[in-house]
Amino acid sequence: MRATLLHGAGDVRVEDVPDSVLSEPSDALVRITAACICGTDLWPYASKPAGRGPARMGHEFAGIVEDTGSEVTTVKKGDLVVAPWFISDGTCEFCQEGRYTSCVHGGSWGQGPYEGGQAEAVRVPFADGMLVRLPVAADSALMPSLLTLSDVLGTGYHAAVTGGVTAGSSVTVIGDGAVGLLAVLSASRLGAEQVILMGRHKARTDLGRQFGATDIVSARGDDGIEQVRQLTGGRGTRVVLEAVGTRAAYDQAVGAVRAGGTISRVGAPQYEEAPIGMGSLFRGNIRLAGGPAPTRAYMSQLMPAILDGTIEPGKVFDTSTDLDGVPDGYRQMAARASLKVLVCP
Amino acid sequence: MRATLLHGAGDVRVEDVPDSVLSEPSDALVRITAACICGTDLWPYASKPAGRGPARMGHEFAGIVEDTGSEVTTVKKGDLVVAPWFISDGTCEFCQEGRYTSCVHGGSWGQGPYEGGQAEAVRVPFADGMLVRLPVAADSALMPSLLTLSDVLGTGYHAAVTGGVTAGSSVTVIGDGAVGLLAVLSASRLGAEQVILMGRHKARTDLGRQFGATDIVSARGDDGIEQVRQLTGGRGTRVVLEAVGTRAAYDQAVGAVRAGGTISRVGAPQYEEAPIGMGSLFRGNIRLAGGPAPTRAYMSQLMPAILDGTIEPGKVFDTSTDLDGVPDGYRQMAARASLKVLVCP
Repeated sequence: MRATLLHGAGDVRVEDVPDSVLSEPSDALVRITAACICGTDLWPYASKPAGRGPARMGHEFAGIVEDTGSEVTTVKKGDLVVAPWFISDGTCEFCQEGRYTSCVHGGSWGQGPYEGGQAEAVRVPFADGMLVRLPVAADSALMPSLLTLSDVLGTGYHAAVTGGVTAGSSVTVIGDGAVGLLAVLSASRLGAEQVILMGRHKARTDLGRQFGATDIVSARGDDGIEQVRQLTGGRGTRVVLEAVGTRAAYDQAVGAVRAGGTISRVGAPQYEEAPIGMGSLFRGNIRLAGGPAPTRAYMSQLMPAILDGTIEPGKVFDTSTDLDGVPDGYRQMAARASLKVLVCP
Repeated sequence: MRATLLHGAGDVRVEDVPDSVLSEPSDALVRITAACICGTDLWPYASKPAGRGPARMGHEFAGIVEDTGSEVTTVKKGDLVVAPWFISDGTCEFCQEGRYTSCVHGGSWGQGPYEGGQAEAVRVPFADGMLVRLPVAADSALMPSLLTLSDVLGTGYHAAVTGGVTAGSSVTVIGDGAVGLLAVLSASRLGAEQVILMGRHKARTDLGRQFGATDIVSARGDDGIEQVRQLTGGRGTRVVLEAVGTRAAYDQAVGAVRAGGTISRVGAPQYEEAPIGMGSLFRGNIRLAGGPAPTRAYMSQLMPAILDGTIEPGKVFDTSTDLDGVPDGYRQMAARASLKVLVCP
């Protein structure tokens, strides 16, 4: 079968690999019908050292169950399913609390024994805990939106939930990537009154307006902070959702948050140390929240609004391709020529 | 009148100063009957550069109203009152939300135009918003406990509340100073099931046990973290209350918190940057909360349990003195020979 492999920075290829097979009795084998490229994939695409062997890529996918191990009970051959971006057993004490990304048997697609989703097929471990059935056909027009349950919609929603967005909230969203835009959608759905989207790319911020952004701030750094303050009576917003992961984005979040407010981060931090003392978080009782989103926990909750057409998170896909087009998809996303690339193997 | 002045590191003196007088129509003049020395006072006592002029000291006090400005309506001459450690107007948008330490007219005792509480008398600005009447006599045996409403009880309580302690919580408290001990008491009152107190000073940790600590860990750093993990099935506690303010205490908090848990800081951070990235807070969706405690917000809520004898936070005072004994009180607290010094002018 064909699968996507990252050989080193800038070097992604679609190659022949051994066919996926069941390995554990809790596995399912899934024929992939829809996958995508994630902003997170661009970090290793930008930086992976060559020579350590290629890595399977792709952590967002939907597909049709082709076979199941003897212990699998919740899905069966022929089911259309979606999987979360993070591998979890679904049974440990953390999974039982919905904290799937802290699973004691947690893992990542494309790492260790795990294959990737930008491929023709994939072995899914812990199938009962991982897979959620989709009540549509594989060629449904809703598939792009349903695929966002895997990562970007659930991650934007996680930002809004852990940020404490409620009816009437004022919210700043930093980042106009797919997660930032779906954080806008989520904040709006949760009743936020003011949603300021910080982004520079007009096609994206226009989509942000469709998703519920009330204001757009294209300036960055101190100028951007100043503009957020001007929009909020000098105070900043009660919630800031940080969907980028750079240190500059964090600093912007600290500048844009109101005293007593919350910064929720879902962009994987590309830094370890940052200011949290008297001059940044402490004096104003600013809360810092967020982390890797347990999207598995939100799938059933978010699916109905997609099925009934209330939300259309699939609008974040502005490009689609087959498997052979994946390397070009990486190039386009890295160049910010594509917002998010849908892959239909 | 006599008041306490800090001239430089290690140089605190009780000296003659001009009598306190009313200055604004919203002021009250308070004759101090009980004050104290705070752990926070020890930071400038250890580090204040000489030669910049002395600073008035003391931000925790109770006393009898001697005079009021024309606008003051909630207290009158003869009332016994307690004031919070932070100066706030009581009327701005932040004060109305109970976020007194973010008051737009906020200030600190002993700084700018404000006098200090380790003195015979003090001018209290924004008296209506600041002062809370105490329904006892000035010589009541409850006075030490009621005085803790000013800062240390309210600060320990703030840690527990912003940390999200609820019935059944597992909690680690870092620091066996007065605030740490009253964080233990607060966590216990809020229903925490396990309260691990990290402290090395036996007299203090014994008091911690009286206040509700279920376990004591005297080791620090990695050893201390390891012991907390052993007490919690390897996971850490869901809440960590950090009542010290050093970088080492923060690192200990990161090590002791369970995935998905909350670190709440009330020790004024003596650092600005610290780890918050993938290797510390982010991966485990750890929340960081806390800040300067708006103790004014908690006074009415916490007072009844003191008045009816349910809690005795005044036990944190292990030494008492008159005003002349204040310099010696600083020395004793800095040497950790006293836990907290009560000052009766």
